[in-house]
Amino acid sequence: MIGKSVPRVDAYDKITGRAKFTDDLILNKCLVAKVYHARIGNGIVKSIDTSEAEALDGVVKVVTFQDVPNHCYPTPGHPWSVEPAHQDVADRNILTGRIRYYGDDIAAVVAEDEVIASRALKLIKVEYEEYPVEIHPRKSMYGSPHPIHLDKKDNVLARSNYLIGNVEKGLAEADTVVKRSYKTPIVQHCHIENPISYAYMEKGRIVVVTSTQIPHIVRRVIGQALGIPWGKIRVIKPYIGGGFGNKQDVLYEPLNAFLTTQVGGRIVKLDVSREETFCNTRTRHSIEYDLTAGVDKEGRLVAKDMTAYSNQGAYASHGHAIAANGLTAWRLQYACPNIRGEAYTIYTNTPVAGAMRAYGIPQAAFAIECFMEDIAAEIHMDPLEFRKKNLIQGYYEDAYLKPIAANTNGIFECLKKGAEYIGWEEKRKKYARQEGYVRRGVGMSLFSYKTGVWPISLEIAGARMSLNQDGSIQLQIGATEIGQGADTVFSQMAAETLHMDVEDVHIQSFQDTDVTPFDTGAYASRQSFVTGTAVRQCAELLYRKILDYARTLLTNESRELSLDHGYIYAGEDPVISLEEVAMESYYSLTNSSAITAEVSTQVKKNTIATGCCFAEIEVDMKLGKIRVLDIVNVHDSGKLLNPQLAEMQVHGGMSMGMGYGLSEQLLLDEKTGRPLNGTLLDYKLMTTMDTPDLKAEFVEMDDPMGPYGNKALGEPPAIPGAPAIRNAVLHATGVAFYENPLTPQRLIEGFQNAGLI
Amino acid sequence: MIGKSVPRVDAYDKITGRAKFTDDLILNKCLVAKVYHARIGNGIVKSIDTSEAEALDGVVKVVTFQDVPNHCYPTPGHPWSVEPAHQDVADRNILTGRIRYYGDDIAAVVAEDEVIASRALKLIKVEYEEYPVEIHPRKSMYGSPHPIHLDKKDNVLARSNYLIGNVEKGLAEADTVVKRSYKTPIVQHCHIENPISYAYMEKGRIVVVTSTQIPHIVRRVIGQALGIPWGKIRVIKPYIGGGFGNKQDVLYEPLNAFLTTQVGGRIVKLDVSREETFCNTRTRHSIEYDLTAGVDKEGRLVAKDMTAYSNQGAYASHGHAIAANGLTAWRLQYACPNIRGEAYTIYTNTPVAGAMRAYGIPQAAFAIECFMEDIAAEIHMDPLEFRKKNLIQGYYEDAYLKPIAANTNGIFECLKKGAEYIGWEEKRKKYARQEGYVRRGVGMSLFSYKTGVWPISLEIAGARMSLNQDGSIQLQIGATEIGQGADTVFSQMAAETLHMDVEDVHIQSFQDTDVTPFDTGAYASRQSFVTGTAVRQCAELLYRKILDYARTLLTNESRELSLDHGYIYAGEDPVISLEEVAMESYYSLTNSSAITAEVSTQVKKNTIATGCCFAEIEVDMKLGKIRVLDIVNVHDSGKLLNPQLAEMQVHGGMSMGMGYGLSEQLLLDEKTGRPLNGTLLDYKLMTTMDTPDLKAEFVEMDDPMGPYGNKALGEPPAIPGAPAIRNAVLHATGVAFYENPLTPQRLIEGFQNAGLI
Repeated sequence: MIGKSVPRVDAYDKITGRAKFTDDLILNKCLVAKVYHARIGNGIVKSIDTSEAEALDGVVKVVTFQDVPNHCYPTPGHPWSVEPAHQDVADRNILTGRIRYYGDDIAAVVAEDEVIASRALKLIKVEYEEYPVEIHPRKSMYGSPHPIHLDKKDNVLARSNYLIGNVEKGLAEADTVVKRSYKTPIVQHCHIENPISYAYMEKGRIVVVTSTQIPHIVRRVIGQALGIPWGKIRVIKPYIGGGFGNKQDVLYEPLNAFLTTQVGGRIVKLDVSREETFCNTRTRHSIEYDLTAGVDKEGRLVAKDMTAYSNQGAYASHGHAIAANGLTAWRLQYACPNIRGEAYTIYTNTPVAGAMRAYGIPQAAFAIECFMEDIAAEIHMDPLEFRKKNLIQGYYEDAYLKPIAANTNGIFECLKKGAEYIGWEEKRKKYARQEGYVRRGVGMSLFSYKTGVWPISLEIAGARMSLNQDGSIQLQIGATEIGQGADTVFSQMAAETLHMDVEDVHIQSFQDTDVTPFDTGAYASRQSFVTGTAVRQCAELLYRKILDYARTLLTNESRELSLDHGYIYAGEDPVISLEEVAMESYYSLTNSSAITAEVSTQVKKNTIATGCCFAEIEVDMKLGKIRVLDIVNVHDSGKLLNPQLAEMQVHGGMSMGMGYGLSEQLLLDEKTGRPLNGTLLDYKLMTTMDTPDLKAEFVEMDDPMGPYGNKALGEPPAIPGAPAIRNAVLHATGVAFYENPLTPQRLIEGFQNAGLI
Repeated sequence: MIGKSVPRVDAYDKITGRAKFTDDLILNKCLVAKVYHARIGNGIVKSIDTSEAEALDGVVKVVTFQDVPNHCYPTPGHPWSVEPAHQDVADRNILTGRIRYYGDDIAAVVAEDEVIASRALKLIKVEYEEYPVEIHPRKSMYGSPHPIHLDKKDNVLARSNYLIGNVEKGLAEADTVVKRSYKTPIVQHCHIENPISYAYMEKGRIVVVTSTQIPHIVRRVIGQALGIPWGKIRVIKPYIGGGFGNKQDVLYEPLNAFLTTQVGGRIVKLDVSREETFCNTRTRHSIEYDLTAGVDKEGRLVAKDMTAYSNQGAYASHGHAIAANGLTAWRLQYACPNIRGEAYTIYTNTPVAGAMRAYGIPQAAFAIECFMEDIAAEIHMDPLEFRKKNLIQGYYEDAYLKPIAANTNGIFECLKKGAEYIGWEEKRKKYARQEGYVRRGVGMSLFSYKTGVWPISLEIAGARMSLNQDGSIQLQIGATEIGQGADTVFSQMAAETLHMDVEDVHIQSFQDTDVTPFDTGAYASRQSFVTGTAVRQCAELLYRKILDYARTLLTNESRELSLDHGYIYAGEDPVISLEEVAMESYYSLTNSSAITAEVSTQVKKNTIATGCCFAEIEVDMKLGKIRVLDIVNVHDSGKLLNPQLAEMQVHGGMSMGMGYGLSEQLLLDEKTGRPLNGTLLDYKLMTTMDTPDLKAEFVEMDDPMGPYGNKALGEPPAIPGAPAIRNAVLHATGVAFYENPLTPQRLIEGFQNAGLI
């Protein structure tokens, strides 16, 4: 079953519109909540008057920052830690009177319907005391008279660094030293379904149904936010319309939970608009990098130095972990004896940055892979050749976090496939010297990516199975289907280990923290690896239990038993059907006991996936317009669980990577930090019209760490597109850009400065 | 926690209207199905024309008996058996062209709303070939030209009998021989919520949300009815508004499941009206008894003989099990060396009889306890004295089904309490000789009742628990809360065994066959006994697992560990909190594994509960009106799990017993078998106006079989009321009635015949 392109288990329901998302599940009669957002970018609320709003007919409740529990809680979708030093930063209240960014949450209205709630918002009167706004991290880090958070006087949320070897000596001895700075933009996940939840009370407990990637973590954070025991909360996750990491954060669920407690437990819906999604949920960190490297005469890296400045926005969310992830990537894959890394994560008065697909690596890879290209250009070496010379062959491991290692390493094969597909050698020559305003180029980039979060953080997953009377099985997991096809590959895994058809695995697609096994959720490309390990162990346990029970029915049979597609075999002979065994287990008068299995598995391993992108582009320098003519991602993600789903996953990531390279950026007003283009009309997401046919290729190696030979694939596809396109523009025009996306404005400015137009 | 009157866990939600029942869960847009019922009582459909109905705007689908799978299936809520001989009778189709009773299901309409569906029904044209209707079992059993079911030429569904000793010899040697006949009426459960379900498809499977007592059995029967693998069906049970055994049958769920498959898996609701509930779901069997007994000079029973004729109605449903249960009761409790029993269950052209609270014993007890009274009268002995003389003291067991035994026997103490409460001795004398038309009397009756169905059938239950981070637990069971308070006592059980507060047990109140552990459901007063055993085992397992994990955290501690209200103790000392242990189990980086436990438990034991009723009544002979002045039930149901819930359970049963004795009966038209009073206006259910203050008393003995010393209590309260009232009328007037209920018509006829009015 593994390695087959079985159709998605949810395909039919999603295509027919039958699959239920959060909004589909709300019974017709519910209250509607809306949030009152700050109209300044930094300051405090001097006074708030909600009396007119409260008097409006149909308004059930107005709450302000003065009404919510007066303590902070953390929001990121990380496993909790019992050690305070490893716990996430708790710097957020459910509502606040200290405004830290334009749009901060001051109050909320609960009304009989959406129109009344919207009207009530307009009746709330707030007086502010305003402070200056700072949206740039490299300025904010020098502190401000009113620190964004009181305990961080310099607005630096965190700083970390490391040193391997002697970078200064390395640089001094290098043949060539290259220094460059790169910057990545704020972008947003733009999942189809905005964050939405509804909350109500039952049996004195709070139930929150929410579009999340991390139901068990949402449960915990609501408990922390409200200051109530975690067992008093139940979180249900239906199908969700994408998450990409934004829903790996706890967003408005604590407010929603609080609001239902304020209206006697009635159903309260909190449906976030697209504008709020841009401004008030999470974004991808904008990170600035200062990079220095030295190479020897052969073009070998002898020393490299990275300093990163990450714009956290107003609240910690995933905080420093994202910049730190980039620092780790700086150590991996390219051989270099002397490496230094340093990163700052800095509060600013901007929308909050959090997790987004590939968690800091698209930023780091943009800097690193542009830098590799620029070094190669500096020493006049073919950039692919330069990389091959410096990449480590075969096994390698991280210097600091040992279990993080390339247990299989397919990067050279990936590069070969990618270069062949794009016609690298031929086109590097062909496009070397072009005239005119429209030029073509090929570019590439590569990456490595961890699988899961171990050993930085905990990896735990649960799975539960039961054998039905007809020989099919029920499968329950706490891991979440978020559109990526998780439920399908988990079903394949169970079928593989139990030697049955995928159709005989009935997976429970909704998670409910009251009933589903514990799992931290969908992030870090972890589920097929970590939860997959739990599914495999659970299936092995069920397999053994089935045979153990079958043995009680086959008392005269001494041969070894096995299970295969509906039959128990003794040696080579089918001796009893699985259905008969199942029926006996349920209904035997002498020995009935339903056959079930459950595991809760900690996974203490990690393995590195890798891959690359090759792109051919045409740039019209006068129009400032890039056309991607052809693009290929080649991935080494171990064995493919479902090739068709893998290809879809890569296609989606490539689209995201192209948007990152070409057009996506959330622009902020310098004076207020207010988003200037926080709508899908103004924020330029890739459309099918902008996208060429996407090519996904794979190098399949059977990774010894993966439960089925598999490695990370969920996030990596989004990484290499942007630098590959930027490098192709460099190839086409000789102009190096240091900031993405390559918008017409930026291109034209660059080409003008280069004297090309 | 056991033995405390903790509030119902669902009290607040039910009182506030927040608790969700099936109809509450239906999203606003659904299709509505209605059933076309036969307008004759016996015959066949010669032709059916649905074209006009199909043409009606808003009609989505019309199906007839010609469209449904052409095979029969069984409907009763019994555990399935892998042995064909023990399987329930499969004599029903989803729809039928062979009409067996007035109202039989011929066709169904699915429409956009209820009004259209009702209109469409009127447009269906059916031509019948009519056969004579027979509603009396003792006539029907002689066969008919068109047997109701072809394989039973004599319309006898089943006959069973037994013989202990030599009854003929015993009777011949008896000092006095008494012969009497008794008859009980057809009554209906009259649960508040009519049967309702809705069905839809997801992932190619059928989901049915239904008001049922037996979700796992409904799943199985739908599979059988549709001829599809059982794993392809998912059944969800929300809160339900009573069942009393009617919902221990699979009613319209197979039709509902079939209908969604006919409309592409759209949501189809099938909401049964009150009239259909009376006519087309299930009733309590009307049973006729011929009883003979001989007593010796001392008033000891020396021989007894019972022949029972049970009116099954048109389909087998629970079939002969109900009459057979009465035969078993005939063997128990009263000592007698020579016993014969014989029972016939006979098909007639009447609404189908099935399970109803106490499963045949209210019928048998009415006959037996009236008979005991009549024998006592015949030999001029005080009826309480007569019973005490013949009742077995202490342990006794059934002659045929050995595990069925009174492991504790509190009947003498029950009688003592009841007699004292009602003032038996004083009032038996006081009311002995009365004049006038209004007279008073006291009467009593008693019963014994099995706990669960073992060894007649399978007893299996499952429970699953997980420890939350805050030290509270989640509890999942397949057994069902049907209003009786099951969820509350299961929570108490878990709390008791885990030494925690009930508030820290979070029970899952909805059952979902995809996720809840397997359990056959709510019937036979089994759950607190059978499922309770599973809950206890599961809690013991979780307890051990918690201590095992705590041990890994307490490596220097050699003393024995125990758990008590949030702390782990070593010896006498609290050494670590449960919350800390739980947190470590989830989040330890060295050894994390969520602590869970699951059991699937077969229970091979049974134990007899017992009790009695004493009633004081006033009868106005001219008005034919009985007023119950005072009534008490005294129950030996082992240890009470929750005294207040126990009392409520008894009150409900007493009301049902009084209705059975005084006013409830479903009248049928002789010519067609059509119900004449199948509405809550015409069918005379007890109201609060008819009911005196109800007195419930208990004799608590710690039963060794019960997981917490408990025995059956769910059904028994409904048993003894009717014969106690009938016997009180005998005491008051000297007139013996042989058929309940004692309606004005019946009373006046009786008093006229006796020359009293």
